[in-house]
Amino acid sequence: MDNKEVVRAFYDAAINRKDFTAARTLVGDTYVQHNPRIADGVTGLEQFIAQLRADFPLLHADVKRLFAEADHVIGHVEGVRVPGGPATAIMDIFRLEHGKIVEHWDVMQPVPADSLNPNGMF
Amino acid sequence: MDNKEVVRAFYDAAINRKDFTAARTLVGDTYVQHNPRIADGVTGLEQFIAQLRADFPLLHADVKRLFAEADHVIGHVEGVRVPGGPATAIMDIFRLEHGKIVEHWDVMQPVPADSLNPNGMF
Repeated sequence: MDNKEVVRAFYDAAINRKDFTAARTLVGDTYVQHNPRIADGVTGLEQFIAQLRADFPLLHADVKRLFAEADHVIGHVEGVRVPGGPATAIMDIFRLEHGKIVEHWDVMQPVPADSLNPNGMF
Repeated sequence: MDNKEVVRAFYDAAINRKDFTAARTLVGDTYVQHNPRIADGVTGLEQFIAQLRADFPLLHADVKRLFAEADHVIGHVEGVRVPGGPATAIMDIFRLEHGKIVEHWDVMQPVPADSLNPNGMF
C-alpha cells in the first residue's frame, strides 16, 4: 500500500469500523498525537477508538480528498457523529515512516447552518 | 514562484500585511471560497482583508508547515488575533491554476488551554 492507501485504510478501520486491532496494523510503534482530546501514543489511540465505539457507534468519516507529499498525507474529511445530525469539517495531517502512521495533527470545526457563500465547506 | 511560494506570499500579503492589492496579484480571476464566513470570489477576499484590517490589525498567521501535491497546497497555520492572546489552529487547502490561487477551503479550531497529551497542536 502507498501512504495514501494506508491513511484511507486507517480512516476505515479506526473511525468507521472503530476496530483498534485493524487500525493497529497501520500504526508504528510510536504514535505522536497532537489532537488535544486524545492521549499520546498507541494506547491513546486505543482509548479513543473504544470511546468512539461507546459514545458514537454510528459515527462516520467521509474522506472528501487526500493529498500526499513524501512522508505526509493530508485528509479533508466530513465527520457525522449521529446519522442525519450535524457535520464536522476536519483536516488531518499524518506522518508516516516505512508505511506506518507515526504522528497525527488535526483541526475540527462544526459546519455552520449558514454561509456567506454558496460553495459549502467541502 | 512555485505553488508553495505563491501560497507563502499569499499568507504574508493577505493575512499578515492585510494588503489586498498585493494579495490580488496571487489570485486568479475566479476565487471559489469555501470558508463560510467569507463571501465568494475576489470581491469576498477584498471584503475579508478590509475586515481583518479594521477588526484585528495585528492579527498574525505563523505558517508551521506547507505541503503540495500537483495543483493543491496545504498549510498548517497558527493564527493569533491579538498579540499575546489565544491561538487558533488552522489548516487551509488552496487550489491553483497556472500559478494563481483559484479555490480555498479551511478548518479552524481554538487551541484549548488543556490537552490530554504533551505535544501541542502544532
